[in-house]
Amino acid sequence: MVGRIPVMDVSPLLDQGRLPAKATLGEPFPVRATVFREGHDQLGAEVVATGPDGVPRAPVRMTELAPGTDRYQAWVRPDAEGAWTFQVQAWSDPLGTWLHDAPIKIRAGVDVELMFTEGRLLLERVLDEHPGRLPAPEVAVLRGALDAAQDVTRPIEARLAALTSPELTEILRDHPLRELLSVEGPFPAYADRPRALFGSWYELFPRSEGAVADPRTGQLRSGTFGTAAKRLPAVAAMGFDVVYLPPIHPIGEVNRKGPNNTLDPAPGDPGSPWAIGSAAGGHDAIHPDLGTFADFDAFVAEANRLGLEVALDLALQAAPDHPWVSTHPEWFTTRADGTIAYAENPPKKYQDIYPINFDNDPDGIAAEVLRVVRVWMSHGVRIFRVDNPHTKPLAFWQWLLAEVRASDPDVLFLSEAFTRPAMMHGLGSVGFHQSYTYFTWRTEKDEIEDYLAEVSHASDHLMRPNFFVNTPDILHGFLQYGGPAAFKIRAVLAAMGSPSWGVYAGYELCEHVAVRPGSEEYLDSEKYQLRPRDWAAAEAEGRSLAPYLTRLNEIRRAHPALQLLRNLTVQATDDDHVLCFAKTAAGLDTVADARYSTGETPGAGVATAGRAGPARDEQALLETSEVTDTVIVVLNLDPHGARETIVRLDLDALGLPAANSFVVHDELSGADWTWGAENYVRLDPFVEPAHILTVRGPR
Amino acid sequence: MVGRIPVMDVSPLLDQGRLPAKATLGEPFPVRATVFREGHDQLGAEVVATGPDGVPRAPVRMTELAPGTDRYQAWVRPDAEGAWTFQVQAWSDPLGTWLHDAPIKIRAGVDVELMFTEGRLLLERVLDEHPGRLPAPEVAVLRGALDAAQDVTRPIEARLAALTSPELTEILRDHPLRELLSVEGPFPAYADRPRALFGSWYELFPRSEGAVADPRTGQLRSGTFGTAAKRLPAVAAMGFDVVYLPPIHPIGEVNRKGPNNTLDPAPGDPGSPWAIGSAAGGHDAIHPDLGTFADFDAFVAEANRLGLEVALDLALQAAPDHPWVSTHPEWFTTRADGTIAYAENPPKKYQDIYPINFDNDPDGIAAEVLRVVRVWMSHGVRIFRVDNPHTKPLAFWQWLLAEVRASDPDVLFLSEAFTRPAMMHGLGSVGFHQSYTYFTWRTEKDEIEDYLAEVSHASDHLMRPNFFVNTPDILHGFLQYGGPAAFKIRAVLAAMGSPSWGVYAGYELCEHVAVRPGSEEYLDSEKYQLRPRDWAAAEAEGRSLAPYLTRLNEIRRAHPALQLLRNLTVQATDDDHVLCFAKTAAGLDTVADARYSTGETPGAGVATAGRAGPARDEQALLETSEVTDTVIVVLNLDPHGARETIVRLDLDALGLPAANSFVVHDELSGADWTWGAENYVRLDPFVEPAHILTVRGPR
Repeated sequence: MVGRIPVMDVSPLLDQGRLPAKATLGEPFPVRATVFREGHDQLGAEVVATGPDGVPRAPVRMTELAPGTDRYQAWVRPDAEGAWTFQVQAWSDPLGTWLHDAPIKIRAGVDVELMFTEGRLLLERVLDEHPGRLPAPEVAVLRGALDAAQDVTRPIEARLAALTSPELTEILRDHPLRELLSVEGPFPAYADRPRALFGSWYELFPRSEGAVADPRTGQLRSGTFGTAAKRLPAVAAMGFDVVYLPPIHPIGEVNRKGPNNTLDPAPGDPGSPWAIGSAAGGHDAIHPDLGTFADFDAFVAEANRLGLEVALDLALQAAPDHPWVSTHPEWFTTRADGTIAYAENPPKKYQDIYPINFDNDPDGIAAEVLRVVRVWMSHGVRIFRVDNPHTKPLAFWQWLLAEVRASDPDVLFLSEAFTRPAMMHGLGSVGFHQSYTYFTWRTEKDEIEDYLAEVSHASDHLMRPNFFVNTPDILHGFLQYGGPAAFKIRAVLAAMGSPSWGVYAGYELCEHVAVRPGSEEYLDSEKYQLRPRDWAAAEAEGRSLAPYLTRLNEIRRAHPALQLLRNLTVQATDDDHVLCFAKTAAGLDTVADARYSTGETPGAGVATAGRAGPARDEQALLETSEVTDTVIVVLNLDPHGARETIVRLDLDALGLPAANSFVVHDELSGADWTWGAENYVRLDPFVEPAHILTVRGPR
Repeated sequence: MVGRIPVMDVSPLLDQGRLPAKATLGEPFPVRATVFREGHDQLGAEVVATGPDGVPRAPVRMTELAPGTDRYQAWVRPDAEGAWTFQVQAWSDPLGTWLHDAPIKIRAGVDVELMFTEGRLLLERVLDEHPGRLPAPEVAVLRGALDAAQDVTRPIEARLAALTSPELTEILRDHPLRELLSVEGPFPAYADRPRALFGSWYELFPRSEGAVADPRTGQLRSGTFGTAAKRLPAVAAMGFDVVYLPPIHPIGEVNRKGPNNTLDPAPGDPGSPWAIGSAAGGHDAIHPDLGTFADFDAFVAEANRLGLEVALDLALQAAPDHPWVSTHPEWFTTRADGTIAYAENPPKKYQDIYPINFDNDPDGIAAEVLRVVRVWMSHGVRIFRVDNPHTKPLAFWQWLLAEVRASDPDVLFLSEAFTRPAMMHGLGSVGFHQSYTYFTWRTEKDEIEDYLAEVSHASDHLMRPNFFVNTPDILHGFLQYGGPAAFKIRAVLAAMGSPSWGVYAGYELCEHVAVRPGSEEYLDSEKYQLRPRDWAAAEAEGRSLAPYLTRLNEIRRAHPALQLLRNLTVQATDDDHVLCFAKTAAGLDTVADARYSTGETPGAGVATAGRAGPARDEQALLETSEVTDTVIVVLNLDPHGARETIVRLDLDALGLPAANSFVVHDELSGADWTWGAENYVRLDPFVEPAHILTVRGPR
């Protein structure tokens, strides 16, 4: 049955409310519902969220999004990690009805004394119903209003004013009379730790870091966890939060690929780390060239010491010589001729890879994958970057992620799916904490505007974006032909447009040469060969963007508005190549603070697994403070020429004061300007393609 | 858990599937779902609908709406009235995978014999799995293909052709191998009798029909059921299906309204029929001026004899002298001064009406309303037009309509709510069979295009529109100032644009004078006074649109495409005042036939209440035949001047042949033309504002 005050079309609801909507500790998320009633009487609606501790939080009043829509919204901010539920509660609001009708009727001379009497009775009910919760000053306001309204010696208008004063109205709003209470829900949401939402990722191949040429043969010798750990201080100094490693397991010998994806490798060629498994071991083993588990543990410890978490690749496929192939041939597909099927996308063949068949022994393979994941978790890996999850059954991921969440809710999974929207959304819906996106391929202004709006407001409840500017697989044409300005443009867009962003090593050197025209593959791709880089020389020669990336990450850490997803609004400009968007956070400390303030250190998730949430005042985070953080990003998307234009800000929506009356500070150039609704900008990509403006308050 | 082959975002779902979606006996409705899977293998998806008899119908294969969307659709056509459910079933399709991969791989020389072997094994599985259901000719095709493909003496391409022939592919499509079957649902839908969807309504005040002036006093004397029944043959002759009567109950004496809504009636003024109740009785009584229950029964019998159903107004409000006010004062709102609250929308007052308070004694008032409804049902009323349902609790309607449906599923309720979309949709969602709409206020081309699309495709699962061209409350400015052409334009739009449409008596006389400029109220509104009309004189003088309305209803009855809601498509024209839309029905008899062919006569619902559906071959209606009906409506929306333009048809979507190759017949003028993708039209509203074109087949 519908409720007495109907509540319909509640959001966020995933799969009819059977799957939890995405939420994050400290991150406000919008709950919306269509709430309406018969006749002319007023209604009230609230969201009541219940934390993982089973304790309902204070109701948050919903407000109508636009007059006449009956669409209501409230922002809810989880103050603990774990499984939440939320209800929408709607009720008849006799106080609101009286406040709406009384001025109209009394001024029209209709039922004057009767309206005053009914008002008095309502105020007396407020005093009766909230005896313990009404502070003395509020009681005094109520009693004063009652006295003034009943004093028939005073003018009618004065008596009415006593009952409709702003301070009284506010008290009544905070202490409503709820009649005909109707409840819709509960519906589930799950609040993950802040790193699920906010983080800067850096991807590196440990075998390349510290790889050196053999003085005798000239052949490169693999780097190790020990040599790679020497790169970590620089990564941390750039302000990154996560260092992500491609697979570190033994690499297949059978059908190994050579440099540039060739089929005839030379004896010393290292092969692709994604062709996992050899006589040396499978997914639970470490490539002998990289070191031992002790070396890996030391690498993780050094990363954690520097404030970095280590993310590991989870690529569920096997080289032909993977131990699984002989011990568990049923985990692969055997064809009619008795051979095991290799990966293919007809007519393309990938003969160095056997895909896993999840249907022959679903329980067996699931248990084995969970075992493998737990091996790495036990060595300090609390983030997994999952390779091609869209080629495995969605139900498998739902099971695996639920299993891990049950015991280790701090462990996060990033979905590396570049496929159609239904699967991308499905993977997010069943539990992936973050997702790669179409960001790389959105390069025109209108495409970027639409996509920022989509990830922030349309798919935000089911998929958290991670904007990678490049990956070992994807060197977009924009970077191949845009020069260093293009690398700055994409870095600003990713770092400012999404609370999580990522960089693959070499980006700071503006590596931009593709294997052939029209390809998005790097020439001499690190996937198939070692690729040591001389970072120090690049920095010394001023060829490195490391200082620029460092500054972007500094700005991200300093500004809570940049640590949230659902607070982005696209702003108008007059030029087709100049993009502007704003992010604003009211009443929030940094999301990072929500984590760091608890004394939790990154990478220490093992020790804190299963806890209910940070030990802080649980109510505090649901309340708002007076602090507001607003960041306005203006970006020239054309790497080849200067652009000048007018930026037109929606000041009302941003909560900013009237035109030309506030100061903005450019976090990149250090300049201060007075801004308002319409602002001239000129951006020369050869100097600096972006303004990153923080609002400094009134002029 | 998601299914092995995930199925998400199924529609139509009302309130997360807790309320049944709207369906109608004989009317196809679309079931959609997002269906996708891992990797490159193919999938299949079907809708399995289960009838009120609990018997699942044959699966209907879903097809992808557009490539890459993963959004699938199938049309389902209920073959019985009552409670249905539907499931979406998805499965891995090894035949589809083989049919996709084999030509690519075999032509590329990859795994040639292995692909043939795998194809052979699949065909043998089809023969094994469908032994009883495969007719001999199909078995022969399969065996022939197997033999041809295995004959290694034949050219590779010929062997491949044997396995990919259209006739074999069709057999395989009809007899798929379903692996990894995943089921989503069941979800509810309720199939009402066809009159819920399709019907032409005529509203008349019985007291006006046959009212005559007292020869002595000159005062008008009320018509009766007896005199009103004499009007019924003309109503039936115009092709209407439903005659709708405003309230026929005793009218309050207290605070009675006079002509033109004045507050000082003369002694003989009849008052508003919506001010229900007096000493003569309440909602279960008949106004003494109209006659007795026996007279009413005779009126209903005469209507039924003519093929008309009688719809009665259900207006849940009371005049101050309604019997309820004294017997059940708790059913009204008593204010602080002890008076009963009259209706108001501050500062407006409606002192002739007491609104019912549904919260003081919800069970008591609900039982009384149900009793009243059953009184009229027992006198042959199977349709109720509910006055202002949006001023009563939605939950009350949900209860009342469920109670009535449980015992008398043929009884229909029309919602007369003109309010915000949330409530309009809510009323439809909880069970109202039909709804008044915003049609009256959509007069510009773009507004009408959007609104036709909305009611046909966006809200079709929760609300069936009834387009009334006028009501006693609403005389739109378009009719006040548009002359007879405006009346034709709105009639064509309503009668062709919606399967249900309605006319309030006097429309055919082009009554167009409002009580004052800017008002939508009629001058000398029939709500407050008797209004006899000289129909015969108007027809004799050629002033009546009755022949035009008759022709529209004839066309509606002859063309199944006009009896459906979800089959409308807006077509392009070059002129801002010329509208074009098309409706098409493939493989359907008239919806009316689905009713009439069972021997059920209109108004005979009492006798057939509770039956499971017409006694016809239940499978037949889910199958399609070769009959296709297409109607193209072109309408000049400007009543003041001729317009000429080009009409641009989307021939593919309409299933029509290529340009200038089919004949259309104008059902209004009788002319035939050869039409194609682009067609010149000229429409002079003073001659005829519309073409109603039926497609006659190829030239």
